[in-house]
Amino acid sequence: MLRNATGLRSYNPALTVVNSAADKPPAEDLSSHYLRVRQATTALSAGLSAEDCALQSMPDASPLKWHLAHTSWFFETFVLEQAVAAYKHFHPQYRVLFNSYYVGVGERHPRAERGLISRPGMEDILRYREHVDLWMQRILHGLETLPQNLRDLIELGLHHEQQHQELMLTDLKHLLSRNPLKPAYHAAQPASSAAPSTLLQWIAFPAGLHELGHDGSGFAFDNELPCHRVFLEKYALASRPVSNGDYCAFIEDGGYTRPDLWLSEGWDALQAQRWCAPLYWEKCAGEWQVFTLGGMRKVEPAAPVCHVSYFEADAYARWAGARLPSEAEWETAATHANTEDNFVENGALRPLPARAGGAQAPQQLFGDVWEWTSSAYAPYPGYRTAPGAVGEYNGKFMVNQYVLRGGSFATPRSHIRASYRNFFPAAARWQFSGIRLARDAIHA
Amino acid sequence: MLRNATGLRSYNPALTVVNSAADKPPAEDLSSHYLRVRQATTALSAGLSAEDCALQSMPDASPLKWHLAHTSWFFETFVLEQAVAAYKHFHPQYRVLFNSYYVGVGERHPRAERGLISRPGMEDILRYREHVDLWMQRILHGLETLPQNLRDLIELGLHHEQQHQELMLTDLKHLLSRNPLKPAYHAAQPASSAAPSTLLQWIAFPAGLHELGHDGSGFAFDNELPCHRVFLEKYALASRPVSNGDYCAFIEDGGYTRPDLWLSEGWDALQAQRWCAPLYWEKCAGEWQVFTLGGMRKVEPAAPVCHVSYFEADAYARWAGARLPSEAEWETAATHANTEDNFVENGALRPLPARAGGAQAPQQLFGDVWEWTSSAYAPYPGYRTAPGAVGEYNGKFMVNQYVLRGGSFATPRSHIRASYRNFFPAAARWQFSGIRLARDAIHA
Amino acid sequence: MLRNATGLRSYNPALTVVNSAADKPPAEDLSSHYLRVRQATTALSAGLSAEDCALQSMPDASPLKWHLAHTSWFFETFVLEQAVAAYKHFHPQYRVLFNSYYVGVGERHPRAERGLISRPGMEDILRYREHVDLWMQRILHGLETLPQNLRDLIELGLHHEQQHQELMLTDLKHLLSRNPLKPAYHAAQPASSAAPSTLLQWIAFPAGLHELGHDGSGFAFDNELPCHRVFLEKYALASRPVSNGDYCAFIEDGGYTRPDLWLSEGWDALQAQRWCAPLYWEKCAGEWQVFTLGGMRKVEPAAPVCHVSYFEADAYARWAGARLPSEAEWETAATHANTEDNFVENGALRPLPARAGGAQAPQQLFGDVWEWTSSAYAPYPGYRTAPGAVGEYNGKFMVNQYVLRGGSFATPRSHIRASYRNFFPAAARWQFSGIRLARDAIHA
Amino acid sequence: MLRNATGLRSYNPALTVVNSAADKPPAEDLSSHYLRVRQATTALSAGLSAEDCALQSMPDASPLKWHLAHTSWFFETFVLEQAVAAYKHFHPQYRVLFNSYYVGVGERHPRAERGLISRPGMEDILRYREHVDLWMQRILHGLETLPQNLRDLIELGLHHEQQHQELMLTDLKHLLSRNPLKPAYHAAQPASSAAPSTLLQWIAFPAGLHELGHDGSGFAFDNELPCHRVFLEKYALASRPVSNGDYCAFIEDGGYTRPDLWLSEGWDALQAQRWCAPLYWEKCAGEWQVFTLGGMRKVEPAAPVCHVSYFEADAYARWAGARLPSEAEWETAATHANTEDNFVENGALRPLPARAGGAQAPQQLFGDVWEWTSSAYAPYPGYRTAPGAVGEYNGKFMVNQYVLRGGSFATPRSHIRASYRNFFPAAARWQFSGIRLARDAIHA
Repeated sequence: MLRNATGLRSYNPALTVVNSAADKPPAEDLSSHYLRVRQATTALSAGLSAEDCALQSMPDASPLKWHLAHTSWFFETFVLEQAVAAYKHFHPQYRVLFNSYYVGVGERHPRAERGLISRPGMEDILRYREHVDLWMQRILHGLETLPQNLRDLIELGLHHEQQHQELMLTDLKHLLSRNPLKPAYHAAQPASSAAPSTLLQWIAFPAGLHELGHDGSGFAFDNELPCHRVFLEKYALASRPVSNGDYCAFIEDGGYTRPDLWLSEGWDALQAQRWCAPLYWEKCAGEWQVFTLGGMRKVEPAAPVCHVSYFEADAYARWAGARLPSEAEWETAATHANTEDNFVENGALRPLPARAGGAQAPQQLFGDVWEWTSSAYAPYPGYRTAPGAVGEYNGKFMVNQYVLRGGSFATPRSHIRASYRNFFPAAARWQFSGIRLARDAIHA
Repeated sequence: MLRNATGLRSYNPALTVVNSAADKPPAEDLSSHYLRVRQATTALSAGLSAEDCALQSMPDASPLKWHLAHTSWFFETFVLEQAVAAYKHFHPQYRVLFNSYYVGVGERHPRAERGLISRPGMEDILRYREHVDLWMQRILHGLETLPQNLRDLIELGLHHEQQHQELMLTDLKHLLSRNPLKPAYHAAQPASSAAPSTLLQWIAFPAGLHELGHDGSGFAFDNELPCHRVFLEKYALASRPVSNGDYCAFIEDGGYTRPDLWLSEGWDALQAQRWCAPLYWEKCAGEWQVFTLGGMRKVEPAAPVCHVSYFEADAYARWAGARLPSEAEWETAATHANTEDNFVENGALRPLPARAGGAQAPQQLFGDVWEWTSSAYAPYPGYRTAPGAVGEYNGKFMVNQYVLRGGSFATPRSHIRASYRNFFPAAARWQFSGIRLARDAIHA
Repeated sequence: MLRNATGLRSYNPALTVVNSAADKPPAEDLSSHYLRVRQATTALSAGLSAEDCALQSMPDASPLKWHLAHTSWFFETFVLEQAVAAYKHFHPQYRVLFNSYYVGVGERHPRAERGLISRPGMEDILRYREHVDLWMQRILHGLETLPQNLRDLIELGLHHEQQHQELMLTDLKHLLSRNPLKPAYHAAQPASSAAPSTLLQWIAFPAGLHELGHDGSGFAFDNELPCHRVFLEKYALASRPVSNGDYCAFIEDGGYTRPDLWLSEGWDALQAQRWCAPLYWEKCAGEWQVFTLGGMRKVEPAAPVCHVSYFEADAYARWAGARLPSEAEWETAATHANTEDNFVENGALRPLPARAGGAQAPQQLFGDVWEWTSSAYAPYPGYRTAPGAVGEYNGKFMVNQYVLRGGSFATPRSHIRASYRNFFPAAARWQFSGIRLARDAIHA
Repeated sequence: MLRNATGLRSYNPALTVVNSAADKPPAEDLSSHYLRVRQATTALSAGLSAEDCALQSMPDASPLKWHLAHTSWFFETFVLEQAVAAYKHFHPQYRVLFNSYYVGVGERHPRAERGLISRPGMEDILRYREHVDLWMQRILHGLETLPQNLRDLIELGLHHEQQHQELMLTDLKHLLSRNPLKPAYHAAQPASSAAPSTLLQWIAFPAGLHELGHDGSGFAFDNELPCHRVFLEKYALASRPVSNGDYCAFIEDGGYTRPDLWLSEGWDALQAQRWCAPLYWEKCAGEWQVFTLGGMRKVEPAAPVCHVSYFEADAYARWAGARLPSEAEWETAATHANTEDNFVENGALRPLPARAGGAQAPQQLFGDVWEWTSSAYAPYPGYRTAPGAVGEYNGKFMVNQYVLRGGSFATPRSHIRASYRNFFPAAARWQFSGIRLARDAIHA
């Protein structure tokens, strides 16, 4: 989004970065921001072995090593190749090897075979990162002369990299969970008390015409644009996410054995995959335990339930006499909500119980767990993709997926905002996904 | 939807039938309406062999015989079992054999195995229909004493049966198409002229708050309710559906070979299933031919394209610099549109070229081909299902499907209306589905 | 196999028919034999509906209608097309539609889609049979002038047709079994007494060099040729097939729950397909029942167990401290055995308990149930296939299959002989397959 | 095989090790033999990265790390657990993690998930090996007091380990081949000359009764026992394996496009997997290249063709007017053949062209490539498995596999012998498998 001569915002789909002159960060900021984000990525692999970083646990998940390479590939392909005539590729075949899904860039190594690549090894990948960083620093030091569209692509690359930071933890957790030794990624904090969850209350919102989408202050992905009007009937939102304790009641009430609670396709998935609890839960000696990045631990009743599919979220809501919020309802409620919450910088690496806070406003909208909405992932009215390969970033996935909002304990705090749209297929469970209930206002 | 004492509409989700006192048909009408609909169903099988009616061509499609039985099962299960203490089942095992997907009714014969049942044969099924009709006549003759909810269920059953009338033609066409002899269901009319399609024009619609959903006059399915407000930005709709001629230009321009035109999942489907044209199209000696209910025939340039998936509709729209309409946009345009069009009563059994008519309003919104919308099939705000098994009719399918509007050449005329929502998965191609383009008003 | 001028047998692989001048049937015999075999085929469909004959229950099984057509196609393709210049095809597309697997003949309709063909209907197929029979009669009436190779092909066609007679019953049984109404093909005889099976005894055979394969008197398939020498160590064969009662003891002893009894691939099949008894067995109120061509009936303890896979036969043998016989052991024992047994002409259409008879020789080697041997289906030393498409009859299937011997209750009596080799994959259960035990002579 | 009191050999199936007093190695030999074999295994991983050793390229192949651990597990489970009361397991869960397929031992980690285990890492596995070696040394130093059955199990464990040495190279090659960078395992020798292959000649063998199976001198696996008599008609064997040059002629003659040359199941495999050359062959600029353990290189015309399935071997033989030898024919020819050939100690790590040598006897029967025989893998008459879990070693795989003979360039020289039976499914191509032709003597 660029200002035109008259100062009016005009939506330029070629640029997913929205910067008014006022909020444009100074040149030195982008350079140091670049370093901070890049280092945070590499830091996630500290303490891991070469094997930990090389294995792929399923086609949906990628090896850590691949994430480290692909995020560098992004800068190489969309910035260095464009901006630096003299740029020397670290390796001629990485262009294919670490292309995720950009058909416009050319051939791609098959997604399901990312775990068949023992070489380049972890050491090569780290050198590849250094190589790209070196070249990027040269550009960033001459930032003033950089055309705006390249600056925007650099900013896009950093937000892209932050998305992969969360995915690294998501995919690593899945990999470690497939190991019968149940190894831990980090030394987990002691369990919080077994206190039950706080009372769930309903916060009412009036009917009316709302603006949905990003307002133009700071960065946004193209799928948050353009800002547009949506009419909402009055509704109510739960004061906190559904907790493990709440969810246990659903399980104990036969939630996983009653087809009337489920969407037909969800019931099929449940039967085919034998779901009887959220992903990573195991019943040990009559007690629910859960695999976390800190290893196996007891399920904490007051913490938000995590690793549920859209189907489970929907079935739980039906059982509870409620429903999932639409993304417009969620965003309207979140626009002025508190974002000081449990993000990756917090170090807990798991969802935490609700903190103190009145029920005047929904709590924990941000952080802890991504919240499934009832909204199919679709383009906003007037949505346009950027020309060229970078236009494949979001648009081509807008079918058969559902929107999640608010970020999780694994999201970098600076990455999330009210208009942010995450999206996954309805059966996905390996993401840090939880449940926020909503209901029609007539109940409120 | 029933009027309450004060005359205000109140949404009763238990009843999907909407009848005000004024428009309630007299008792004799329901009885004769019943006979007319039931006979229309059986008439579709006239001229077919027992084998034609017994085979199942794929899990998504059912044998004609099964449709004939299942529609009778519907009255037996939801009306006769409830209303007539003395009712004698025609056969004790039909309750399981012809239950489609109503978990609340009990066990169901697996969908994919409907084609493994040689007995009951076609003759048995016709006697089963007579048995049910006989008992239903007894009830309908004493109609005045019938509780309203049973009358509503009878009406639901008739609309249900009309849905299956169209499905019988859909499924039969698919079965016959799998036969290398390419047999015809009926003697087709001579091809219309090879005239090109009329000029496609754009009809503009203003921004504003619209009512979406059924207004309460006459019958509606629960998924059309409740009526609710939606805000639409201004938009434009194409004056006619996309024609075969239009679509050929897309094919010739490499539409099926350019991934940039496709949703990612659509491109995967194209590759996996080797799509290179709509379903039923075959290139014979350099010329496109198409399998119809009247056998193989030349593709008519001016007739609406049919048997395209959502993915193809979406790719075509992108190629054409347009998009698919949302269902709210479609319904707003259709509310006052002409419904005198090409339905099953017409006997053509294929989509026909656009008829004369100015471009003041979109033509052929009804009949000819179902029109894919960009809207994921989802509950309207405030949607509630009926209690009991009949509540499974629509609600449990509201995920990973897309809404189609307007009916086709195989739809009974009395079955369709502006608020009617049909829905199929994005990859489905065996339905009579076509394309209506829309675009943002800024282009208009 | 043809005698040459010197009277010595010389193996001519081009001809699978073995006729010495002495045993060649007179011309009129072949003509009436033709009629008898063809009528027997059609007679199997008497009392069946068009639907019964049209459905395909799985890719391995074919519709009855298809068998009726394919056996006619065989004469049309391998005899009439060759022999009669003026021959007029009944329908030009049947050549593809009813070609089973003869690549040399040209295109074939896919096997798994034989059940998608509603037209031609049963009536058309019966007229097709009449058409072929009419032309064949013309040839057969001028039999004297017929070259020997055509006479041989006619004889091959009749034995081919007899194979399909058995397959018609096999496939029909499978189809009817998939129907929850469990319809019967014929009115079954009353159950025989629940008497236990007769004592199983061991018949010893000495070591030595034996001739294996067909000796040249009368017809044989190419896979029974050439006759060759095999050395056998001494061994013993069970006096009768394993009975249902025997097999129940295996089940009750945990036969289906002990991996140590099974081949590794068999155990995988058991788990994947959830085998816990022979195919068609069902436990009803604590009692084993079995689906037969006469409907559901109690399992008869003294009758041979039927519908077991090679894996089950092998596991049973291991459990019983025995093994399966090799085909050489079986054939050596069978060469002089009694063939007056329970074949299709008997009308029982199920395996019958052992009849009176001393234990001097193995009983029931012929008829009742096909007996799995331990021998992989392989070419005999010196085996050669006929040139041309008819050479595909047997040879190309000689991998990953196991030999069965002796025929079943569904085999025409005139079709079977000691050297006859049937073959199926180790997991096949829908054939009429049972178990004959053998053991090393050291145990005898 | 143990001597009994009378000095006669008596077949003890519990012991797969055959040692007469005369050829029994002295105690110190077993100890040093142990060290030599174990070190050879570890040496194969020298120069590989942790990632190279951790990845699994397909369910049939295992990570190198897994082979290193499993071979240790074998000694731990079958020797140390039995023999040493004080034995301390290195890790309690390795018993499950590194059990390959021994149901009798207990649970097993799923084969297809061996590549999901990042921990234990390569370093842990090497320490595991040292742990087992330390305990084994204690036993081996007190060898005189060791019961014979434990000594036999140790010897079995060493032969087991040698099998895995070859599999490590087989599986590693497959893994590296899936990497688009085509990395090399070792620095390959320069290509031998492009000389064509030597003339293929036929060596005749007379008919007669032969002994098949191991004669009792030295070690043998149970599947080589017992020695038994087989009658062979006269036959001829090719003087050398089929060469790449020979095989190219087959390809150029349309070998992969002519169904008449193929077994039906082989043709299906060819089509499903799109075979058009041996595994690892790629056509680059009109020239066949092949991936080897030394990276991509030109196909050498005179070297034996490698990485063909049974189906390809069989099709090639049919095309060449020959057939594959039975294992009895092969073994008869090999009993007195030269075994000084191209084994793993040679270091070439690929099949080499035929060496000088007259055509009096077949050359290269041993080493270079495993040779497919026409024999289904089956128990020899009188075969018995050992009691207990170790009895699962061979017996339970005797179905739907075909026997290969003679070892390859990756086999340790001391591991192979004339009676040695290797076995793989007919579609397997990642083994070092080639073709030896045979034919009936009438052609000779």
